[in-house]
Amino acid sequence: MSAERIEAAIAELAAHFGDRLSRNMSVRESHAHGEGYHEQHFPHAVVFVESTEDVSAALKICDAHHAPVIAFGGGTSLEGQLNAIEGGISLDLSRMTAVLEVNAGDLDCRVQAGVTRQELNVYLRDEGLFFPVDPGGEATIGGMCATRASGTGAVRYGTIRENVLGLTVVLADGRVMRVGRRVRKSAMGYDLTHLMIGSEGTLGIITEIQLRLHGIPETTAAAVCQFETLADCVETAVQVMQMGVPIGRMELLDDVQMDACIAYSKLEGYRAVPTMFFEFAGGPASVREQIETVEAIVAENGGSAFRWSTQPEERAALWKARHAVYWACLAYRPGYTGISTDAIVPISALTEMILGARSDIEASGITAPIVGHIGDGNFHTVMLVPPGPDGIAKAHDLDRRLIARALSLGGSASGEHGVGLAKMEFMADEHDAVSLDVMRAIKATLDPNAILNPGKMLPPVTT
Amino acid sequence: MSAERIEAAIAELAAHFGDRLSRNMSVRESHAHGEGYHEQHFPHAVVFVESTEDVSAALKICDAHHAPVIAFGGGTSLEGQLNAIEGGISLDLSRMTAVLEVNAGDLDCRVQAGVTRQELNVYLRDEGLFFPVDPGGEATIGGMCATRASGTGAVRYGTIRENVLGLTVVLADGRVMRVGRRVRKSAMGYDLTHLMIGSEGTLGIITEIQLRLHGIPETTAAAVCQFETLADCVETAVQVMQMGVPIGRMELLDDVQMDACIAYSKLEGYRAVPTMFFEFAGGPASVREQIETVEAIVAENGGSAFRWSTQPEERAALWKARHAVYWACLAYRPGYTGISTDAIVPISALTEMILGARSDIEASGITAPIVGHIGDGNFHTVMLVPPGPDGIAKAHDLDRRLIARALSLGGSASGEHGVGLAKMEFMADEHDAVSLDVMRAIKATLDPNAILNPGKMLPPVTT
Repeated sequence: MSAERIEAAIAELAAHFGDRLSRNMSVRESHAHGEGYHEQHFPHAVVFVESTEDVSAALKICDAHHAPVIAFGGGTSLEGQLNAIEGGISLDLSRMTAVLEVNAGDLDCRVQAGVTRQELNVYLRDEGLFFPVDPGGEATIGGMCATRASGTGAVRYGTIRENVLGLTVVLADGRVMRVGRRVRKSAMGYDLTHLMIGSEGTLGIITEIQLRLHGIPETTAAAVCQFETLADCVETAVQVMQMGVPIGRMELLDDVQMDACIAYSKLEGYRAVPTMFFEFAGGPASVREQIETVEAIVAENGGSAFRWSTQPEERAALWKARHAVYWACLAYRPGYTGISTDAIVPISALTEMILGARSDIEASGITAPIVGHIGDGNFHTVMLVPPGPDGIAKAHDLDRRLIARALSLGGSASGEHGVGLAKMEFMADEHDAVSLDVMRAIKATLDPNAILNPGKMLPPVTT
Repeated sequence: MSAERIEAAIAELAAHFGDRLSRNMSVRESHAHGEGYHEQHFPHAVVFVESTEDVSAALKICDAHHAPVIAFGGGTSLEGQLNAIEGGISLDLSRMTAVLEVNAGDLDCRVQAGVTRQELNVYLRDEGLFFPVDPGGEATIGGMCATRASGTGAVRYGTIRENVLGLTVVLADGRVMRVGRRVRKSAMGYDLTHLMIGSEGTLGIITEIQLRLHGIPETTAAAVCQFETLADCVETAVQVMQMGVPIGRMELLDDVQMDACIAYSKLEGYRAVPTMFFEFAGGPASVREQIETVEAIVAENGGSAFRWSTQPEERAALWKARHAVYWACLAYRPGYTGISTDAIVPISALTEMILGARSDIEASGITAPIVGHIGDGNFHTVMLVPPGPDGIAKAHDLDRRLIARALSLGGSASGEHGVGLAKMEFMADEHDAVSLDVMRAIKATLDPNAILNPGKMLPPVTT
């Protein structure tokens, strides 16, 4: 019966969208998963939309037939957000690549949901502006909003949550709303913008985004510093944050991660020991001041002298290596599956968390490099497991231990990858029953036929 | 019938709360209004709550009887948020003044809703920390969350929205939920924290708040600078923002406002001309750099030399004068009513907006000093009108013109005072019909009996 409803929707969609609807097996396969390790779940069809009106038309049809709809952007999510676990329609927004306006004087712009952060930054370069939120992959801005993404720039500029002024959203029944204003703040009504951010396509589909931008800093300098122990490296990060240094970026890589990165990204002259990548940005005097403060903290914690990358190309190579850690991990154990963890804790609990994670990893016998947006208290381990269910089950056990540790320290199971399928089991550990009920009530109100990314985020009610 | 329900609720509340329920006329009168100009609307009774459990108990009783409940904190709101327009119970949270925890290493704390920002900052002083959100009055933190407040510190530190990590909220039916985690970011589920912030007691009652704190900057310097024309003063602010200077505070006072402040706050040696109050904060080198940049911008726009306040007492006197502008305005026209506007526009539209506002004011014949959180694009005029309905009607006409101008420039009717009763008529100008429907649907889901601050924020559906 579900299959019949979906087929009826597809017939109507095909009539409306023509050859922008595809049932081709390889197209369906490429829309059956993100970049995570989950098994694939094929959609019945893929519709390539090009405008808010297209999304509205598609949702009207799907809602009428109660057919599932999964919004698809860059395909880079890691927690199973894109899998069509009940089949249905994958709505591909990757052709919505227009930068609709740039207001340089106001440091904002409006983009369609399919623009990637890389495309946007190329577009903005000549304006002296940039967009600072930088998750690892070729993520779209729409997808980043949907999963509440962040990255290495969040410690200075905040996550996508702090960098969105407003959204155009298509609701489950096809109605379109535009929320948020092009101002730095407003106290006029409920904050629907932030309700949509992080809702992973379960409350509405984001088609356009009004983004905050930032001026390219006058001075930028990157430095690498190595430590004898992981504890010294983490403690450095904690002190930098507690001193209130407006650090541009601060990324921790443990010895295993450095070993993988040295091999994959051809980093020369580095040892496989706990390492910090720093970026300092601002006016020249402010940057000098930040560097002096951080150098003093590093020295106190036994870190090496800074190795500088002042040239743009050198800096780019360094951060490219940082952004490639996931691929470096996969290359470190060829043929293995990489499963990323995403826990986050308050800064003061970082040392306990990271050292605890390290001993959990060692106890598990799994190779799992640690890399972290350490200034935010957020870190990833890419658990590398051999093919087969046993390895994945062992990795899940390790992830559960790490998350339990993070939650007991006041943290969260996910800093930036979202819930999807993989983190759903932790929702009830992290949120109380009333909060979950309220989330479910809002979901039922906005998507009464449960067509939007069904089976994700909110765990079923157990009775 | 409504009165019967309310009396039935009061009987139960009296049994539960004893002498913490008051029907005393002067207590009811003090809970019949905020600091705005609106006529009073008395609640039938006031209940003084001391804990989340008290709020829960009160709401269970009121929900069972469908009796209206208005949360009351410092009583400082300006848009009629506190008026009991349908009678019912005013729930006074001002006795909930405990600072529950301070986590200095994580720069956060947890407070009960009735703590004021002033009390919190006194409490924090010895820790070297402060809380930067500073609306004018003796507002409570709970009330600030409810109205999405900000103030002079928002240009640097953001509004209350950016400074809340989590909340304890009592829902209409008395259920308690705790939302948000003590981490800098999380991607685990719908953002209920930000849904509650700015909902003005219509979706739930906030009883505890986990707040972000900030380290007291190493160096702070305040300066005043005067301009020959309003346009020069505004243009200076626009350029400071566009240059990305991390300015601590930047407040514009026009010639009329300066005239009022010179008289009220005994500011010596200043002329009644357009004036900017600046504050610079950070490391000493960073502060010097900011000052150099801003001095160059000021010089280019014909501003006077800076007059410095480097001593804490002098600085405090300056900002005290800034925070007293509302009272300075009332003293400027004794016996008149002061009605504050609150429009906000994108930075690039500021000059057009402020000069337009100034000519709107002159055309209206109303005395209306302008003062602004100019770095945010947000400014207030306190419209001073003689007693009687004619004056208020004329002021409303002027406010409508200012808001229409702000909206046409991409702005918002309220930067920080909220909707309440007074801005309700502009909700449909600012938000599209679908957004308003979604807000109404969420309200109906969370408060099915419509007991929470009824008749506020969301305009009735017109058919």
